Amino acid sequence: MHNQFSQYISGLEGGQDLFWSLMYLANEIKKNPESFYQAAPLKGKVMSALFLNPSLRTRTSMETALFRLGGHLNVLQVGGGNGTWGMAFEKGVKMDGMEAEHIIEAAGVLSSYSDALAMRSFSTMSDFKKDMQDQAMQALAQHSSVPLLSLESARYHPCQGLADALTIKEYLGEPKGRNFTLAWAPHPKMCGVAVPHSALLAAARLGMNVNVVHPPGYELDPEVMITAEQLAQVEGGSITVSNDLSAGCQDADIVYAKAWGSHLDYGQTAQGSLRNQEYQDWTLSSKYFDIEKQAFMHCLPVRRGVVVEDEILDSKASLVQKQAAYRLWGQMAILIKLMNQNF
Amino acid sequence: MHNQFSQYISGLEGGQDLFWSLMYLANEIKKNPESFYQAAPLKGKVMSALFLNPSLRTRTSMETALFRLGGHLNVLQVGGGNGTWGMAFEKGVKMDGMEAEHIIEAAGVLSSYSDALAMRSFSTMSDFKKDMQDQAMQALAQHSSVPLLSLESARYHPCQGLADALTIKEYLGEPKGRNFTLAWAPHPKMCGVAVPHSALLAAARLGMNVNVVHPPGYELDPEVMITAEQLAQVEGGSITVSNDLSAGCQDADIVYAKAWGSHLDYGQTAQGSLRNQEYQDWTLSSKYFDIEKQAFMHCLPVRRGVVVEDEILDSKASLVQKQAAYRLWGQMAILIKLMNQNF
Amino acid sequence: MHNQFSQYISGLEGGQDLFWSLMYLANEIKKNPESFYQAAPLKGKVMSALFLNPSLRTRTSMETALFRLGGHLNVLQVGGGNGTWGMAFEKGVKMDGMEAEHIIEAAGVLSSYSDALAMRSFSTMSDFKKDMQDQAMQALAQHSSVPLLSLESARYHPCQGLADALTIKEYLGEPKGRNFTLAWAPHPKMCGVAVPHSALLAAARLGMNVNVVHPPGYELDPEVMITAEQLAQVEGGSITVSNDLSAGCQDADIVYAKAWGSHLDYGQTAQGSLRNQEYQDWTLSSKYFDIEKQAFMHCLPVRRGVVVEDEILDSKASLVQKQAAYRLWGQMAILIKLMNQNF
Repeated sequence: MHNQFSQYISGLEGGQDLFWSLMYLANEIKKNPESFYQAAPLKGKVMSALFLNPSLRTRTSMETALFRLGGHLNVLQVGGGNGTWGMAFEKGVKMDGMEAEHIIEAAGVLSSYSDALAMRSFSTMSDFKKDMQDQAMQALAQHSSVPLLSLESARYHPCQGLADALTIKEYLGEPKGRNFTLAWAPHPKMCGVAVPHSALLAAARLGMNVNVVHPPGYELDPEVMITAEQLAQVEGGSITVSNDLSAGCQDADIVYAKAWGSHLDYGQTAQGSLRNQEYQDWTLSSKYFDIEKQAFMHCLPVRRGVVVEDEILDSKASLVQKQAAYRLWGQMAILIKLMNQNF
Repeated sequence: MHNQFSQYISGLEGGQDLFWSLMYLANEIKKNPESFYQAAPLKGKVMSALFLNPSLRTRTSMETALFRLGGHLNVLQVGGGNGTWGMAFEKGVKMDGMEAEHIIEAAGVLSSYSDALAMRSFSTMSDFKKDMQDQAMQALAQHSSVPLLSLESARYHPCQGLADALTIKEYLGEPKGRNFTLAWAPHPKMCGVAVPHSALLAAARLGMNVNVVHPPGYELDPEVMITAEQLAQVEGGSITVSNDLSAGCQDADIVYAKAWGSHLDYGQTAQGSLRNQEYQDWTLSSKYFDIEKQAFMHCLPVRRGVVVEDEILDSKASLVQKQAAYRLWGQMAILIKLMNQNF
Repeated sequence: MHNQFSQYISGLEGGQDLFWSLMYLANEIKKNPESFYQAAPLKGKVMSALFLNPSLRTRTSMETALFRLGGHLNVLQVGGGNGTWGMAFEKGVKMDGMEAEHIIEAAGVLSSYSDALAMRSFSTMSDFKKDMQDQAMQALAQHSSVPLLSLESARYHPCQGLADALTIKEYLGEPKGRNFTLAWAPHPKMCGVAVPHSALLAAARLGMNVNVVHPPGYELDPEVMITAEQLAQVEGGSITVSNDLSAGCQDADIVYAKAWGSHLDYGQTAQGSLRNQEYQDWTLSSKYFDIEKQAFMHCLPVRRGVVVEDEILDSKASLVQKQAAYRLWGQMAILIKLMNQNF
C-alpha cells in the first residue's frame, strides 16, 4: 500500500537510500515549488497531528506544506483546555486518573479519519532510559493503520535532522571530511536530547568529522552514539566526544549549538536547571566562535544571550533561518513519500 | 432555503424519515467515498464550530468531513487561553463577570461568516433539570440564521446516536426484536447523560428490545424515556429498566456500556464521584459479558479497566472502532443534508 | 513586489486613496461574492496569524475570508498550553525567563512558510506611552519579509476601523457633516484604546463632526488625536472633546460606545477597574440615547447591561451586527490588496 516506507519516526527508516532520495526530492521542490503545487500530489489527503507540546516551526510548516500540496492538516492539541482529551500511553493501565483517552483507541480512531498521522511528544524528563524507549510514539506506531510521521519525540526529531542535512549540504557543497561540532549550550530549563541526536545522525550520514562537546554528565544516549559511529564508518567520517568547548570549536566548519539536560537529573528537573547554570560560560560567543570563518546552526527556538550571543545569531555566520526554511521543503518531500504511493 | 431541516441538535428532527434517509446516505458515502469527494457537495462552504469542551473524534471527523467534501471547518475553542472570548448564555444577564461575549451577539456574527454552525456544550453538572433544557444550545439555535448541528449538548449527542445506529444495523442486519442493553458503568468523575440518551433513542428507532440497567439514583431524564417508549411502540420494540447488571446483560445481543452521573448529585460533583465508586463492581467484565456471543459498544473515550476490562475492549466482540469510523460517514451525511439544498 | 502597500497595521497606510479603494473593493465583494470566490484571487496563498489574545470575529472572519478566496489561514495561538512557544519582543533581552522564542526568529521563520503574516497583540496595560509605540507589532513588521496585517495592536484595530467606516457609509449614505459621538462606557476591566482610536479615525476620514466624550483622565493618545484633527480638516469635518455624556449624545446621528482604560492607571489595573466603576452611570441607556432617531455602534464583544442596556442593543437602532458582517468584506478587500499584486 505504501510505496517505500510507512513511518518516519526515527529518521533512520529506509537507510541512506531513503535519506538521499528525500534530500533530492526536497531540493527539487525548493527549485520549482509551483510545479509541485500545480500537481497537488496530496490532493484530498488528510493528516491528523497530535501535539502534546508547543510548536511554531513544525506546526506552521506542516500546515502550509499540506495545504500547498492539496491536502489538509488537522491540528490537535492534546489535553489543553478545550483541545482534545488528556491521553494515556502506558499499556494495561487502569484509567482512574486525569487522562480520559488511551492512545490505543485514539490511534485507531484517527486512522479511520486520516490518510496519515503525526505526533509531537517530548521527553517527560522523568526517566532517561524509559524516555529513550519513546513509549508514546511507539504506542501510536503500533496501533495506527496509516503512515506515521514524528514531529519530535523524546529520542529523535527526524524532520529537523533532514532540514539540518539539507542546510549543511547547501552550505558546504561536499560535507565529506569537513568538521561539524555539536556544542552543548546552557538553558534555564532541562531540555530533551531529540535535536542533538538527530543533528548528530545528520552530520554522520553526510560523512563529516563530528565532534560532540559537552560538560561531564551530559552524555547522549549510548545507542544513538553507536548508530552515529556506524554511519560515520560507512560514510568515511568520524565521531569524537570531548568536554572542552574551546578546543572542540577550534577547527569546526560548522558549530551546532544546542541545550540539553543531563541524564543524571531526569526526575529532578530543578537540579537539572541548577546543573545547567554551572556551565554558564558555555554560552557560544566570540571567545569560541569566529563569525568570519565558521557557520552557526541551531534548530530554534533559541534563548538569545543564553545559548548564543546575539552578535553570532544576527551575523552572516548564522544558518538558522536557512535551517527553518528547509523544514518546509524537507517535510513536503517526506509527506509526498509517506502519503502518495506514486512517488 | 434549507431542504429538509435546518438543525440537527436533538437527532429527533425530521422523525424516522430523516433518520432513515441519513442512514441510507451515510452508507452510500461509505460504499463509494471517492465519488462524493469528486462531486464536492460542500464546495466553498464554511461551518464554524464552537467547542466549550474537549473533543477528539468529533472535532477530527468534522474537520476531515468538511475538507473531503470541499468545505472548511473553523474550529473555535471557547474561552480557552488565546481561543475565543468566554461566553455568556443566560438571557438578561448583566455582564460584569468573567464572560466577555454573549451568545446572542456571537450567534449573529458567526452566522454572517458561515454557511452553518455547530457547538459542543456539555452539561455543567450543576442542576439536572436546568441542564435538561439545553440552554446554551437553544440560545444558539434561537439567535443564529444558518443551519445548526449539535456536537453534543447536556441532553443529546445526535452524531453519536446516528453512528451507533449505523453500527448496530451493520452488525445485526435486522435489529428489530434483538436485545440491546444500555449498561451504566463506573467512572472517576461525574459524566453527562447525552450519550446514553442518544444511544437509547438509536436502539429504540431500530425497533430493538432495550434494557436500561443502572444502580438506583441513576435514572435518565423522564422525558427522554417517554420519547424512547413512543419510538419503541411504533417500531415494535420495548424499553425496560432494571438495577441488576448481571440479569440485564444475560440475553443481550449488544451491551453498550457508558458512565453517567446520578441526577441526585448535580451541583455536588465530589459526592457524585463518591457515589460512582460505590458501584465499582459494575465495571463490565467476563462476569457479565461473553465475548464469544455478545457485542460490546462504547462511544469513546473509554476509561480502560474502569468502565470495561481490557479483555473485552481488545477482543473481537468490541465494536468501538466501527462506531468511531461511522462517525465520519454519518456526519458527512448530516452535513450534506444540512448545507446543500440539492440533497 | 507588492502592488500598493505591504502592511496594514495602522490603517493609515496609503492615505485616503487606499482607504477609498478598500471601501470600494469591499462593497464590490459584498455585492457579488460568488464571482470573487470563483476567481479565487488568493488561490494557494497562506497567511499565518499569531494570536496573543482571544478573538472570535477577527479569527473566524479571517479564516473564512482566506478559505473562500482560495487560500488558507494558519491560526497560531501564542504561548497558550500546547500552542506555540511564549514569545519575547524586546530587543537585546537575555532570554533566561519564561519566553522560549524571540519575534526576530519567529518573523523570519513564518515569512518563509507564508505569503503574508498577521498578528493580534493587545496592550499590556503596563505603560501607556510604551504601549503606544506598539513594540510587538513594530518588531514583527521589521523582521518579516512578507506583507503584514494587524489584527489589533495596543494602538490600532485597522480591520475594525474599515468595517466601521463601511457601516457608517451604508447607514448614512453621505456621512460628511453628520454627527458621530464616540462615547466612553464602563467595563469591569481596563481595556485598551485600539478600537476607539480606529473608530475616531474612521469617522474623521468620512468628514464627520466627531465628538469624543469621556470622563476626565480617559484622554486618548495625543498623537492619534492630532492625526484625527488633520484628517477632519482635510475632509471638512471636526473633532471636539468633552466630559459630558448627555450633551455629547444629544445631536449625534450615531453613538459609538466603547470602554477603555484610563492612561492614569496603566501598570495598576486594579485601580483602573475601580476608576471605571466611578462612572457606572455612563452605561448607554435611554437617558442618553433615542432609539427612534439615533444609531448605535459597538465593535463587539459587548458587556450587556454594563456598556449599554439591552433595550438599545436589541433594538432596530443597533448596527453592531452590520459592523461585524462588514468585517468579512473589508478584510477580504485588504487580503486581496495585500497578497495579490494584480489588484
